[in-house]
Amino acid sequence: MISVSKSVLRRKVAELLVVRASGHASDSEREHPLWELTNSQLERLLGEGVGGVILFGGSTSELRYRCQRLQGWAARPLLLCADAEEGLGQRFAGGTWLVPPLSLGKIFQKDSQAALKMAEHYGSCIGEQANRCGLNWILAPVCDVNSNPRNPVINLRAWGEDPITVSELVCAFHKGLSSKGVLSCAKHFPGHGDTEVDSHIDLPILGHNMSRLEELELVPFQSIIAAGVSSIMTGHLLINNIDPINPATLSTKIISNLLRGSLSFQGLVVTDALIMSAITKKFGPGEAAVMAFAAGADLIMMPESPDKAIDAIVDSLLKESIPLSRLEESLSRRRLALEGIKEVKCADSKEFFPPESLNFESISEKQFSKELINKSLEFRNPGKIKSTVSGINLLWIDSIFSSPLINSSAPAIYLPELAGFRSLICHPSGVSPWQDDPNSPLALDNIGHGPVLLQLFIRGRPFSGTAYRKEPWISAVKQLQRRELLDGLIVYGCPYLWFELLEALDESISAAYSPGQMPEAQSHAISSLFDSDCAKATLSLLMFKEFSD
Amino acid sequence: MISVSKSVLRRKVAELLVVRASGHASDSEREHPLWELTNSQLERLLGEGVGGVILFGGSTSELRYRCQRLQGWAARPLLLCADAEEGLGQRFAGGTWLVPPLSLGKIFQKDSQAALKMAEHYGSCIGEQANRCGLNWILAPVCDVNSNPRNPVINLRAWGEDPITVSELVCAFHKGLSSKGVLSCAKHFPGHGDTEVDSHIDLPILGHNMSRLEELELVPFQSIIAAGVSSIMTGHLLINNIDPINPATLSTKIISNLLRGSLSFQGLVVTDALIMSAITKKFGPGEAAVMAFAAGADLIMMPESPDKAIDAIVDSLLKESIPLSRLEESLSRRRLALEGIKEVKCADSKEFFPPESLNFESISEKQFSKELINKSLEFRNPGKIKSTVSGINLLWIDSIFSSPLINSSAPAIYLPELAGFRSLICHPSGVSPWQDDPNSPLALDNIGHGPVLLQLFIRGRPFSGTAYRKEPWISAVKQLQRRELLDGLIVYGCPYLWFELLEALDESISAAYSPGQMPEAQSHAISSLFDSDCAKATLSLLMFKEFSD
Repeated sequence: MISVSKSVLRRKVAELLVVRASGHASDSEREHPLWELTNSQLERLLGEGVGGVILFGGSTSELRYRCQRLQGWAARPLLLCADAEEGLGQRFAGGTWLVPPLSLGKIFQKDSQAALKMAEHYGSCIGEQANRCGLNWILAPVCDVNSNPRNPVINLRAWGEDPITVSELVCAFHKGLSSKGVLSCAKHFPGHGDTEVDSHIDLPILGHNMSRLEELELVPFQSIIAAGVSSIMTGHLLINNIDPINPATLSTKIISNLLRGSLSFQGLVVTDALIMSAITKKFGPGEAAVMAFAAGADLIMMPESPDKAIDAIVDSLLKESIPLSRLEESLSRRRLALEGIKEVKCADSKEFFPPESLNFESISEKQFSKELINKSLEFRNPGKIKSTVSGINLLWIDSIFSSPLINSSAPAIYLPELAGFRSLICHPSGVSPWQDDPNSPLALDNIGHGPVLLQLFIRGRPFSGTAYRKEPWISAVKQLQRRELLDGLIVYGCPYLWFELLEALDESISAAYSPGQMPEAQSHAISSLFDSDCAKATLSLLMFKEFSD
Repeated sequence: MISVSKSVLRRKVAELLVVRASGHASDSEREHPLWELTNSQLERLLGEGVGGVILFGGSTSELRYRCQRLQGWAARPLLLCADAEEGLGQRFAGGTWLVPPLSLGKIFQKDSQAALKMAEHYGSCIGEQANRCGLNWILAPVCDVNSNPRNPVINLRAWGEDPITVSELVCAFHKGLSSKGVLSCAKHFPGHGDTEVDSHIDLPILGHNMSRLEELELVPFQSIIAAGVSSIMTGHLLINNIDPINPATLSTKIISNLLRGSLSFQGLVVTDALIMSAITKKFGPGEAAVMAFAAGADLIMMPESPDKAIDAIVDSLLKESIPLSRLEESLSRRRLALEGIKEVKCADSKEFFPPESLNFESISEKQFSKELINKSLEFRNPGKIKSTVSGINLLWIDSIFSSPLINSSAPAIYLPELAGFRSLICHPSGVSPWQDDPNSPLALDNIGHGPVLLQLFIRGRPFSGTAYRKEPWISAVKQLQRRELLDGLIVYGCPYLWFELLEALDESISAAYSPGQMPEAQSHAISSLFDSDCAKATLSLLMFKEFSD
């Protein structure tokens, strides 16, 4: 017989949920109103005991007040998290956006000690800024080994392409992050590095057997467990050889047997967002939450419907199809994790930031970010692009609407304009710049004639469905070279695309690569490729712009 | 002999400047870093006595703290203003964005009493929200009579197309705004309604003689002066018949003789932004500020260089080429205006908003905004567009980067997607959807084949250089109709474009027009045109989305 009342049970189960909210203060500011709860929904759910919130969007200064407000709606301490793998600036304006982790993996190949120091600094920088905003849990590091360059969703989010590099760097990152009293989260168990399907769209299947997994995918997870990581996120992946029926997120064999049993992980297990299509296509909103919990997950991330998730889990407990002890175990793991969180003293909230600082980002944080950008930039034939009167600055932007990095004031747009290059901005939802001829794919009649500066902002992003293969960039570069129209090429993001283009590129062409897409990286890449007169104009503008440094 | 010291003079002159700042807290968040001062620059200038700040960008909640912070850097009360002609939401996320004023001009033709009530409410809504954010001066109403439909920069920002409509509505607006203790600003003296050149790009020339100006352009200014408006902004316009040499902003004949003399205006005269090309193309940064001040302007808005503006005016005073009495006059007018400002008590800043409200925008403000949207929407053949499998949602967005209204969650994109219309997003900086054939301008081979929903977001925006004529929309609509490919047409923005398209449109085609471009207007227009099944799906989504209402 169950002795607890249903309402007590409901409140306890609610504690295990992590729901999604906008970092903005008002409902009307939500960037994704279909996914982000309204303030009245949040107030009700937190009042009913929901124990975690994941935040997206807004600025770091809004976020600080947002976190205080959410905490005020809850009776108990909340887990407040963000998917800020590359720094607070990746999700919240004003924070530092660091270069993607894979850049540190490249540095590790040449100088492992330097890379390890940087990875630790990377983690402590994120931890420090998370504290300043009121977040206590960062959903990083990615522990996937990006062994497959065609991976559309991990790609440069991984710390390396081999298990040793990833293991060492993620442990250094974890050390830095947890030194600030912020929880980390290793993801996506048991390893999302060798997939060509994006789990935001469909369920990726991994055909590897246990011995392969032990040699590769599991290695970084074992290391970071040994280093005391507080939480691990499961991936929406079907590992045929372990559980041919259920994806890792919903699999007892993977969570309870492999992760808790073989790998002896004692911390929090959290699902990847249950609202992702890999799950919602096959499982109902209550069903998915119950299955994840039954399989051994402690925290239910972004359930399709928070109320249905709570009700369904409560029902299973009342029917005793899941033992009450599972609930107590998860609650006690959550409690333990919360105890590890540093008590953050907020400064007087009448001031946005500590009174001595004019900006959220400190000078040393900005310096660190610049250092990483500079260390990870690559060049060929710098200083050669000249001013022109009829140049075309052909930009390809993978995600035109979600790129806070690109607007009319972005260096990638205004600096070439100063040198006579008119911007032509292409994106996957626009009129195609392509014609059918595979040897001359770029429809120059539609694009115009003149020397072309080609700038590609391509990361192999989630939701895009492909890494970067859909667009015939290699043929396009060859076509421009044949017609002697290519003045320069810059790739921001995917290193695999850069390597392939480099092979197709004439040795005389100016080119640059930056793993990061931030304005700082844009200025640096462009001013390096342009000749000294253009670069001087550029520099004086930049000095004006960054006068406060 | 000048008896005041240079440093005292410098501080007094500084009071007359209005400098530009981002509404965001941190330098790195500035959307236009070339135009917006850094925090260290602001701290220094405000410490040196600069008396006004104009704010752009950020959210209403950030703005509140931003205003407190700026005020904290200044020794005396600041004028804190925004160019929020259509509501705080036009510049700051979370605020209400109302339909453009010209919609009320249309309503005025049918029901003048209703329109006057709305215009007053429009003003009080803006005043109320300005107070809540800490702004004390709103740069509205536009008093220009949009007598020229080809006007690229005023267009639907005007309250009407004839002097009586504009006069009555701007006075009602001023009454509403000033009832909240917020200063208003009538602009752009002596009238920017009959220009085909955008003063952001070049200097428009107005050939009218005095009697025409008295009959048309000056009428709304005379009315609002009689109604006690606190400030008037001069336009960058050359009025050949009054002053064939200097634009209004820099013209003694227009400011001192016409505005102060003939029209007896006693309040503050403020220049339009001196950083606009109409001025900077011809005048140096110190020169323009001195000329404006000498001509009779009290406040210098957005000088190209604040320091040079101050130095140049101080020099003129020391050389006595401008009498010291001019300075004292302007300072005393500024003091008088500041005394008219309501003392706003901020709630405890630990809470973003008054504790009883979950969102910045109140329910009644949202209601008012909806009412205006509904009243100003026009339809033809509603309920007729059906689901399809191969539809094309062809969106033309005039300003792809500065449109906070359009992202992947915008109703104009996701609602048609639900009905099978794939989005094709075109913009002036993208690959052209046009071919050379004037009878078949749309290059359908590049766009795809299938029924087309055409949605045009075109306001005739500043900086675009043209109103809307550049793109051959009328021929494109005719081409789609000939091929029986046009499923529907929606125009958001320019009413003149809508009228012209309506004439070209087959009577059977579904079409809608909304002067506003906000998400609410998008949902309403689209769900009205689609058939009941699609509309039902739409409605259920909207209910989910707006659950908190």
